[in-house]
Amino acid sequence: MDGTTDAVGTRGKRADAQRNIAAILDAALECLVRNPDANIAEIARRAGVGRVTLYGHFSSREDLIGQLFTRTLDRADRALDSVDLTGDPRAALSRLVASSWQIVDQFRHLLDAAQRSLPPARIRAAHEGPMRRIAGLIERGQAEGVFRTDLPATWMVALVHTVVHAAADEIADGRLAEQDAARVIDATLQAAYTPPAG
Amino acid sequence: MDGTTDAVGTRGKRADAQRNIAAILDAALECLVRNPDANIAEIARRAGVGRVTLYGHFSSREDLIGQLFTRTLDRADRALDSVDLTGDPRAALSRLVASSWQIVDQFRHLLDAAQRSLPPARIRAAHEGPMRRIAGLIERGQAEGVFRTDLPATWMVALVHTVVHAAADEIADGRLAEQDAARVIDATLQAAYTPPAG
Repeated sequence: MDGTTDAVGTRGKRADAQRNIAAILDAALECLVRNPDANIAEIARRAGVGRVTLYGHFSSREDLIGQLFTRTLDRADRALDSVDLTGDPRAALSRLVASSWQIVDQFRHLLDAAQRSLPPARIRAAHEGPMRRIAGLIERGQAEGVFRTDLPATWMVALVHTVVHAAADEIADGRLAEQDAARVIDATLQAAYTPPAG
Repeated sequence: MDGTTDAVGTRGKRADAQRNIAAILDAALECLVRNPDANIAEIARRAGVGRVTLYGHFSSREDLIGQLFTRTLDRADRALDSVDLTGDPRAALSRLVASSWQIVDQFRHLLDAAQRSLPPARIRAAHEGPMRRIAGLIERGQAEGVFRTDLPATWMVALVHTVVHAAADEIADGRLAEQDAARVIDATLQAAYTPPAG
């Protein structure tokens, strides 16, 4: 190989690598959404790559799940861009939480897999975008006197996360009907955010 | 060994075994409350037993943590017997949640260790006693019209668990001051349980 073909070859290899990485992440998502215990062999098979190729890009199942989780949350964060957060903060909260719940519900098994294999700090970090979005809305609602101010805003942000994921757990354990989840989450959060009666 | 000394010996060995098991569980609690990553060697050392003895009673670190977790929750459930659950359900809820929080706060690191090494269903099962206690109070509060009835009672029970543990996580991550936790938990749950304004 001379210098020219080397540069072209490198570029070609890089494009191949990008394609393989994307295919592996797509395959991992498809497998894990169906079965949070899906293993590396299954994921490689679905991606149409060998295990050696897979391990060339991801050092372990945990690494793969971690990168997939970050990609999924980044996409979710961009999807939440379309939610109208203006107007009455209570109505905006309902819209934001409903959209967030749809995403969590869709990726519930990936979240299960992530919770089993990633450290809590990693899971938290991946949520930073959506959490910041909620924080902004809560602060506006507090400033406008619509949301309570006797609880720290950070706690109220954590509460969204915790209530949404508790609903996912309750559905997984068969104690909450999937079609009730959106209403239950919204009713719980709206009540928890309302200023206490003087 | 003849028949008589054998029987005595067996009884003696059983008593030794009981003492060793109790000492290992006590040592595990002391170690894990300080450091949720405490390993088997440390726990055996503190219990004053060899690793072979420890593994004679507990098949793995996970088995040890599981048994310790169940013992701790059973004791917690008995401690909660002293909470007065009569009278105004709201006040009773405050008392029950305050006592539950004290226990969770005390054993926070054990809970961390349990969450990292036990399956969620095992953790849930260990909470059955305390959860039943809360369920009874919620049902009474709903029957008396003090707690809302537009949310399933099972969800309201789950919410106690989820809010208390979210507070523990927020403290662990440095976002909630430990001295604020009891107030924040109570304010959140009371608001979430109040019947929505017609």
